[in-house]
Amino acid sequence: MGCAEIIAIGSELLLAGVAETNSLYLADELLKIGIEVRYKTVVGDQPKDIEGALRVALGRAHLVVTTGGLGPTRDDVTRKAVARVTGRRLVLHDETLQAITERLTARNRSVTAEQATQALVPMRAQVIPNPVGTAPGFFITRNERALLCLPGVPSEITRMVPEGILSLLEPIAGEAARGAVLHRRLRTFGLMESEVDARLKDLDVAGPSVEIGLQAGDLGVDVLLTVRARHAESAEAVLKRIERAVRDRVGDHLYAAGSQSMDGVVAMKLRSKGLTVAVAESCTGGLISQRLTSVPGSSAYFDCGFVLYTNRAKVDVLNVPDSLLRAKGAVSGEVAMAMAEGARARSGTDLGLAVTGIAGPSGGTKEKPVGLVYLALADKRRAVCRSHLFSGDREGIRRRASQAALDLLRRYLSGKPIE
Amino acid sequence: MGCAEIIAIGSELLLAGVAETNSLYLADELLKIGIEVRYKTVVGDQPKDIEGALRVALGRAHLVVTTGGLGPTRDDVTRKAVARVTGRRLVLHDETLQAITERLTARNRSVTAEQATQALVPMRAQVIPNPVGTAPGFFITRNERALLCLPGVPSEITRMVPEGILSLLEPIAGEAARGAVLHRRLRTFGLMESEVDARLKDLDVAGPSVEIGLQAGDLGVDVLLTVRARHAESAEAVLKRIERAVRDRVGDHLYAAGSQSMDGVVAMKLRSKGLTVAVAESCTGGLISQRLTSVPGSSAYFDCGFVLYTNRAKVDVLNVPDSLLRAKGAVSGEVAMAMAEGARARSGTDLGLAVTGIAGPSGGTKEKPVGLVYLALADKRRAVCRSHLFSGDREGIRRRASQAALDLLRRYLSGKPIE
Repeated sequence: MGCAEIIAIGSELLLAGVAETNSLYLADELLKIGIEVRYKTVVGDQPKDIEGALRVALGRAHLVVTTGGLGPTRDDVTRKAVARVTGRRLVLHDETLQAITERLTARNRSVTAEQATQALVPMRAQVIPNPVGTAPGFFITRNERALLCLPGVPSEITRMVPEGILSLLEPIAGEAARGAVLHRRLRTFGLMESEVDARLKDLDVAGPSVEIGLQAGDLGVDVLLTVRARHAESAEAVLKRIERAVRDRVGDHLYAAGSQSMDGVVAMKLRSKGLTVAVAESCTGGLISQRLTSVPGSSAYFDCGFVLYTNRAKVDVLNVPDSLLRAKGAVSGEVAMAMAEGARARSGTDLGLAVTGIAGPSGGTKEKPVGLVYLALADKRRAVCRSHLFSGDREGIRRRASQAALDLLRRYLSGKPIE
Repeated sequence: MGCAEIIAIGSELLLAGVAETNSLYLADELLKIGIEVRYKTVVGDQPKDIEGALRVALGRAHLVVTTGGLGPTRDDVTRKAVARVTGRRLVLHDETLQAITERLTARNRSVTAEQATQALVPMRAQVIPNPVGTAPGFFITRNERALLCLPGVPSEITRMVPEGILSLLEPIAGEAARGAVLHRRLRTFGLMESEVDARLKDLDVAGPSVEIGLQAGDLGVDVLLTVRARHAESAEAVLKRIERAVRDRVGDHLYAAGSQSMDGVVAMKLRSKGLTVAVAESCTGGLISQRLTSVPGSSAYFDCGFVLYTNRAKVDVLNVPDSLLRAKGAVSGEVAMAMAEGARARSGTDLGLAVTGIAGPSGGTKEKPVGLVYLALADKRRAVCRSHLFSGDREGIRRRASQAALDLLRRYLSGKPIE
């Protein structure tokens, strides 16, 4: 099993409140090709600290991946630290300099000395082009160890990894075939963590080669399966068996697997059924529309979204009856259904999805507390509604409400009766 | 200045999609008493890996703080690793065993052997009570190095640190009291990282006590200031001076400071001017509405949001002239202005903000490539528009476009001419 260490470089990553996220993506991609991340290190921009971290990492991992510190500014010092630790001079990479020049010229900017330093790479390093930024990455192998240096901008990394990097790592991944670790994420919504735990409890007998972890958050409870085995085939067989067992236990609370999201699952179902949807939101403020349109090609199924904060807007834009608003209040099942029907009718879509609720922190009453949310879904024949009382802060309530709304849509699209 | 390393222990923290958050809290608390975190390491539950990480950390930091791996389950192996690395036997701590017994008895559970192991601590370690969980923490000093081991549950850490830990660290902090470290984040939008760097270049003369870091992302470039000084007062004076200098250089590209966000700044300005806004979006899919309503009390200034994907919806809901759509295309400055005016007129708000563009990955043409975005802002008198060509993936383009739209609104609200 090839093992890796990720070093995230940047003083800002050591500050309070700044989470390092590149390594989450990288760990996932590396695992897909059989490389397990065993250490992650975060280090600031001090050259000595970076050199120290590189030396330690090269001593304990087959593959070291650094992120950050490759840009044109003075605090971008990774390439120098790598040169020092590996004993390789920095040399100018002509093609990269040309790419940087073209990129800047297209934006009517000139190539400064600082910009040009981004074309410096350690001698004999393999340069990894950056299709969406100026600083390229580079790859060095040395004494059966490999060092991969990437820029720190997440959107650049997510382009570079599938396009140029995974194939480079195949020799290391090949080693991994000797022992296999497989991971699988199964995502549930609608059960508490303790409920999922109770349902899975006696699956523990699956043996020491299987680990079952739970991770609870605003979007539900994820079940994390890890299987270790000598051979990939036996690991796959065990994983399949345990996944089937987990699926049996959690039933239709399971909404996605692996890196799938609720957004993606709902989008796929809408497309495959050829249905269109319009959305009316109050407390979620556009989050449901945003999630439904986060998937490429969403214009195939998404038509219109309405974010309606005031009663007047609900009446005016979606024809919610004023009398209903006065009788039941804006936060009610009846208004949610009228909003769903209004959105559908206004846009001429097959479906209308609506949310109205109180995200807080203020605005709650004894009868209608903060966290009370009504969801409704309308098709051509009828509308149904659901109520939830979510806990958490404003952002958490909004996220949970959007997830519950999409889950309602998912269940409908699965052909399950949603009474 | 005492420096620290945080080691987060737990295999789940190495899995894809699991962010480690305890260290964000700890870095903040440590900094408050003058201890700077210089390294963070994440390591799994393998004893050898934990021992390796402990040895490296004790070699490069004055204070090492571990989180996780102190519980009763088989994968909780921190205390054994600490015993091995420090050469101290584990001994039973009577008071802790008693506390565990009382805690479990109160819950009608019996004390198992696994539960009892939580009362084992390295010899001569100082035990740190855990008021909200079973596993206590412990503290060891050795050769002028200190090692603090804490459980991994965030809610336990946030109780233990203020109640029992900060005072323990005073000897180390005492060293630090001889020096103070202050941080400040200044957030800019509209300049490339290299441009910010060029503007700040000669501020380096501020001396070795000042560090200026840059962090670039979809939402702009943040300038991170770190000032080290012998006394807190002088650090504050230096920070004030350098902040003023940075503000001078970046001008009105600076939109926020500290933990403020663009959403919060725009919300504050709308409230203080008593203005209301309606939003019309296509490619951002609801993100602008969502950001404007993420701030509590947003109903004071936010009225309506429209997410309009189809031409028909733009015509039908916002009265964008069909002829204009046919002549200029949906992605054009003219349509953006018509959408902004339409949103304002439809909702009766003071302002209308609109975005239309191509978020990709497909849908681009030679004339109108992926990343092309038009923004428009309308008030009662007129509408203005801007065009941008954003790079990045779909999500990155959406985030940049939403930030640019809010920045346009911010500049308008600052009373700057936006020609």
